[in-house]
Amino acid sequence: MIDKLVSKIKETNAPIVVGLDPMLSYVPEHIQKKAFDEYGETLAGAAEAIWQYNKGIIDATYDLIPAVKPQIAMYEQFGIDGLIAFKKTVDYCKSKDLVVIGDIKRGDIGSTSTAYAVGHLGKVAVGSNTYAGFDEDFVTVNPYLGTDGVKPFVDVCKEENKGIFVLVKTSNPSSGEFQDRLVDGKPLYEIVGEMVDKWGSDVIGKSGYSAVGAVVGATYPKMGKILRDIMPKSFILVPGYGAQGGKAADLVHYFNEDGLGAIVNSSRGIIAAYKQDKYAQFGPEAYADASRQAVIDMIEDINGAIGGH
Amino acid sequence: MIDKLVSKIKETNAPIVVGLDPMLSYVPEHIQKKAFDEYGETLAGAAEAIWQYNKGIIDATYDLIPAVKPQIAMYEQFGIDGLIAFKKTVDYCKSKDLVVIGDIKRGDIGSTSTAYAVGHLGKVAVGSNTYAGFDEDFVTVNPYLGTDGVKPFVDVCKEENKGIFVLVKTSNPSSGEFQDRLVDGKPLYEIVGEMVDKWGSDVIGKSGYSAVGAVVGATYPKMGKILRDIMPKSFILVPGYGAQGGKAADLVHYFNEDGLGAIVNSSRGIIAAYKQDKYAQFGPEAYADASRQAVIDMIEDINGAIGGH
Repeated sequence: MIDKLVSKIKETNAPIVVGLDPMLSYVPEHIQKKAFDEYGETLAGAAEAIWQYNKGIIDATYDLIPAVKPQIAMYEQFGIDGLIAFKKTVDYCKSKDLVVIGDIKRGDIGSTSTAYAVGHLGKVAVGSNTYAGFDEDFVTVNPYLGTDGVKPFVDVCKEENKGIFVLVKTSNPSSGEFQDRLVDGKPLYEIVGEMVDKWGSDVIGKSGYSAVGAVVGATYPKMGKILRDIMPKSFILVPGYGAQGGKAADLVHYFNEDGLGAIVNSSRGIIAAYKQDKYAQFGPEAYADASRQAVIDMIEDINGAIGGH
Repeated sequence: MIDKLVSKIKETNAPIVVGLDPMLSYVPEHIQKKAFDEYGETLAGAAEAIWQYNKGIIDATYDLIPAVKPQIAMYEQFGIDGLIAFKKTVDYCKSKDLVVIGDIKRGDIGSTSTAYAVGHLGKVAVGSNTYAGFDEDFVTVNPYLGTDGVKPFVDVCKEENKGIFVLVKTSNPSSGEFQDRLVDGKPLYEIVGEMVDKWGSDVIGKSGYSAVGAVVGATYPKMGKILRDIMPKSFILVPGYGAQGGKAADLVHYFNEDGLGAIVNSSRGIIAAYKQDKYAQFGPEAYADASRQAVIDMIEDINGAIGGH
């Protein structure tokens, strides 16, 4: 799957991923109204609204981008109905040949981590049948529990040709509370980065990249540069661009010399573009066209910055 | 909710929690057959089998215990149908007045952590209505992202009178890879423990315990003793007893002088008791009676050990 991601990035010339993290407040009035008219102001109504909203954005952008990253929390908050909308979104993106990165930040130990891996990347056995529960292409994984927590995901990746991105240095202001703590003079995120390199060492694809990537926030460019060197074969999934303050110029060192090795996420900046002054002329009815223009602008911004790499 | 947990522990004289972590292989043949006859060997069939299995165990044990801890991964692996079984299990346990600890190990940042907190502990707004998506009483939370990840859960706990258990020192063999790393001579888990104490400082219940508890594995008793002192007002949720090797005698120092302060989990040891030689006489048909006997034996074992505290 990492090879598919690489080839899709080359094909689109767009090292970006659109974060499908819908808040109900982002969904234009006309879509909310239609969903609530049909299902009432219920969890099913909310789920229908965010699904229709997503579908509009996917239809307007899928030819420009290699991948999407639905954030499961935004669906899970609406309970079972929300998770049905998550699954519909995953399936629809796959039907458009997009690589789907489930931003699930799961992590447990042993058979429990295996259950998450099976549910999101693999297949579960029921009697003589097998079923894929959610069937994303990649998921994000939390490393706090160590190898026992991550290895079951890597095993499923190997069997199913899927991939993971392990949280290494997150984009938020307090990420340093634990991640930056110095262990023998070395910050914890570097130690986690070394483990990411190790976990990925026997799942290297034809592209030269491993099925075990890393999450490193755009808001910490110096650390991104160091981590790039520590994990040369890992793709870096970069949150924090745009709304969180990360700038394209900061991202140069997240990429390798081959111009690959990173994929930059934008969520609100794309999916709620129509709410920005810059794209206000589209209006809520044409919110998806605003998203398309925001994707075009983001690709230009990122490529402009890394072109001189 | 922490006060309810404390009063339920006093009432049952049982500082234990039953982990509802069903594997399909634990479910007795007759329950699987009935579910598959009705729904086929499908995800819905698997979900029905684990729900009926859970129901039997809950009916046989609810009067003896204060709390249950369903592990969401074991349901999530069966996709949407599995999560419907999770929700049924949560609701049924609450109808039996059990405290429900959702073992979800979620954690993200800002509005995303809020979405998880709202979905599992609080209520989400849809138009002029509000809905509880999963509605557990407590959930487990991963601290790797720092205060930005945990604070949104604490805020929802305050509003909704709910609680969390933050992963501090997990029970698995590789938990030390990151958690034990020394920062200025102090292991990371102690630093996380100090933050747990701080996060809980303004959500102290009438019982004197805080809504922010901690997960500390039974397999690391020396660390448990130190963490007990660092977080005097936090309840400790203790996995790793029984099947993972933790012994009752090791658990004495997880408790405070008042005989409270910890709740010990057993999953497989209770729910699959009928598969052990010790309880084999019950047979698969009476699996729930085997679970009841295993609960009685566990309470005696734990109370025997902490009685001399």
